[in-house]
Amino acid sequence: MSDASASGVRPVGVAVLGMGTVGSEVIRYMTENADALAARIGAPLALRGVAVRDLTKDRGLDPDLLTADPSSLVARDDVDVVVELMGGIDVPRPLLLEALRHGKAVVTANKALLAEYTDELAAVADSTHTDLYFEAAVAGAIPVIGPLRRSMAGDQVERVLGIVNGTTNYILSEMGSTGADYSETLAEASRLGYAEADPTADVEGYDAAAKAAILASIAFHSRVTAGDVYREGISRISPDDFESARDMDCTIKLLAICEKLTQSDGSEAVSARVYPALLPNTHPLATVNGAFNAVVVEAEAAGRLMFYGQGAGGSPTASAVLGDMVAAARNKVGAGRAPGESTYAALPVASMDEISTRYHVRMRVADKPGVLALVAAEFSRHGVSIAQVRQTEVELPETELDDVEPSAELTVLTHRASERALSDTVAALSDQDAVTAITSVIRLEGVDTE
Amino acid sequence: MSDASASGVRPVGVAVLGMGTVGSEVIRYMTENADALAARIGAPLALRGVAVRDLTKDRGLDPDLLTADPSSLVARDDVDVVVELMGGIDVPRPLLLEALRHGKAVVTANKALLAEYTDELAAVADSTHTDLYFEAAVAGAIPVIGPLRRSMAGDQVERVLGIVNGTTNYILSEMGSTGADYSETLAEASRLGYAEADPTADVEGYDAAAKAAILASIAFHSRVTAGDVYREGISRISPDDFESARDMDCTIKLLAICEKLTQSDGSEAVSARVYPALLPNTHPLATVNGAFNAVVVEAEAAGRLMFYGQGAGGSPTASAVLGDMVAAARNKVGAGRAPGESTYAALPVASMDEISTRYHVRMRVADKPGVLALVAAEFSRHGVSIAQVRQTEVELPETELDDVEPSAELTVLTHRASERALSDTVAALSDQDAVTAITSVIRLEGVDTE
Repeated sequence: MSDASASGVRPVGVAVLGMGTVGSEVIRYMTENADALAARIGAPLALRGVAVRDLTKDRGLDPDLLTADPSSLVARDDVDVVVELMGGIDVPRPLLLEALRHGKAVVTANKALLAEYTDELAAVADSTHTDLYFEAAVAGAIPVIGPLRRSMAGDQVERVLGIVNGTTNYILSEMGSTGADYSETLAEASRLGYAEADPTADVEGYDAAAKAAILASIAFHSRVTAGDVYREGISRISPDDFESARDMDCTIKLLAICEKLTQSDGSEAVSARVYPALLPNTHPLATVNGAFNAVVVEAEAAGRLMFYGQGAGGSPTASAVLGDMVAAARNKVGAGRAPGESTYAALPVASMDEISTRYHVRMRVADKPGVLALVAAEFSRHGVSIAQVRQTEVELPETELDDVEPSAELTVLTHRASERALSDTVAALSDQDAVTAITSVIRLEGVDTE
Repeated sequence: MSDASASGVRPVGVAVLGMGTVGSEVIRYMTENADALAARIGAPLALRGVAVRDLTKDRGLDPDLLTADPSSLVARDDVDVVVELMGGIDVPRPLLLEALRHGKAVVTANKALLAEYTDELAAVADSTHTDLYFEAAVAGAIPVIGPLRRSMAGDQVERVLGIVNGTTNYILSEMGSTGADYSETLAEASRLGYAEADPTADVEGYDAAAKAAILASIAFHSRVTAGDVYREGISRISPDDFESARDMDCTIKLLAICEKLTQSDGSEAVSARVYPALLPNTHPLATVNGAFNAVVVEAEAAGRLMFYGQGAGGSPTASAVLGDMVAAARNKVGAGRAPGESTYAALPVASMDEISTRYHVRMRVADKPGVLALVAAEFSRHGVSIAQVRQTEVELPETELDDVEPSAELTVLTHRASERALSDTVAALSDQDAVTAITSVIRLEGVDTE
């Protein structure tokens, strides 16, 4: 990767910001496969420099390539493509804006930044006729952004359903197979390196929500930011929930769901949401276990497609970054440009009240005559139709038998209902004396029937 | 889709050649989603004409759009993109060459044509700086060509393993679940419309071989034509083979396999082949049933990816065609161009002798002492290591008991071996008096272990 190419073609200069797991792999593959990449691009790639925080650490690279000053690196005239792998928002944002302002292409894996500032970045890229690529921001190695943007460009996407967070998928897969509870499983995941020291971003669904925002924006040609995404984490999922799931031939997955819907006033909108949901074992996403990711795209003409692979890790993420880097470099050589962000549809984001799905509600009720009728009446009064109901006696320790009323567990599976109607029903049930507690409300996704 | 666009932008003129199932769907979606497509392209699409064989048939289209003269349609100055959905080779080939010569973009789903003449078409597209798109030629709606060409552009593809023919996948899925034999199942598939009147192209693997040639060319940046692809059909697969498969926790799938390998002389080559193979039930392709298609891509950095969806049918195939049409139209508006065919690697195609895989060999042998030792010695003599062996008595009708020697069935599963060594072994076994018949030889794919 020297400046002087054998063929005399001007090389495409690359600056890499950040040299963690992904950055190191990107640089390694760039070096090892330099000839193949040059052949595909039509010019060699030249690594101009790597911005790192700690200059003293040995990284097996020519020390002259390292700099602690990303701003000067980005500003160099011989840098054509800036690859951002630092993470965070405040530091990379001005760097990438500056790069785009000077017509340099940007390749980034930074989902948090994109979920807030794609618009701002894309506007500058448009103005200077350069590229903003970010395949690696969603689902690691799996091509999802590219297929949505290009392969689906002639179709109408109706729904995107994804398992896009490896940590929560690992935890839920383990809970499902071992029967262990959430805290134990999280602790084990941390011990094995599948969960970070502070797992909040993963387990509370922030990471998946950022990805949902990115996917929804592209799938529906609209602006959706992370703050627009309804979000529930997995910490409230219990072994009992998995038992209910098994009884229904389902599993539980943290899903990122993006769909186009018609609101109650008749207007179209986008819904983007993240929550743990029941999913039938026959659904293609149900068998996506451990740290794997998968994204299902449902489109008018294509029907259901699925994209599956490794959603994280240095090498898989590097694959997506390198693909974008080659595309950006090809465009620099050919003076072309990828289609920019398209937000022509400008659909509003629907509130959760507007969505409709199916619900599995588990509650503790007094075990006496008339309770089932009362519960059924509340569902009915709010227009929520019941598909299945099951009552099971709750066995209490003998010592408590004298102190408490006999109680039962009631589980209700609804037909498709609006979130508003369901939450009104749950609120009304909570006010009933005969209902001791609403133990859990889990949505059921991935079924076409009502 | 009128000539005069509201915004005053010059429309992109489209000619459609062929109005069968796919063509009709393409035209329907073009019309119904005209505004969305115009917004994505930056200009409206204008349907200039549709070439059909029978002008008298009512197609629900303005009759002025229909023509029986594709050549004149293609030649029109106001046609920018030619969409070829006629099939066959000799008729479309000169039409598409002529279109490309005049700088018109070509979108085609014609795998047979591409598997022979991609080079010729691509050379003309290069010379006039226009596009040749063919996502719909492989695996219907599933984005495979695009991801291989673009998303994988920074990675090194090692292997592509695909179920790319719906008819054979339907037949094999049915044989696996019903236990019926091949002829019955084919007859049933024909009755249900899953197999054509003359099913040869599907069941003998010609269709899959054309797709393998296209996939191998793109994955390995080399020239592979349909004739380079080793091919076996599914007609010799028996219920006994499925029974062996079940015993091994496997299923049987017709696979298109493209891989890079190192030949015995140390040089690199591409292998492209199509045959029914044993596949472990745990492999992601094992659960792809019925008319669905899926393609697994294994790459150095990305690891294993899978793309899954509907591999045929009017609407799904139209989705892929429309995606290409939008891409081609965007390039006409933006004066850009997609990266052309890349064959820089120019790897030769390996002969079957050079491949290595695992084999499941079933044979009828005389049931007498020393036969197992003799068979094992033949494998060993040819350097083929045995992983498992099983001998079962063959029960004969009582009437035959006096007439024939007692015989047994011997099944041998090998470790990884070269095709040459395996076929030499089989030939040597056939010459042995104690071996009555080699009943079947099936390759085992999709296992990483030796």
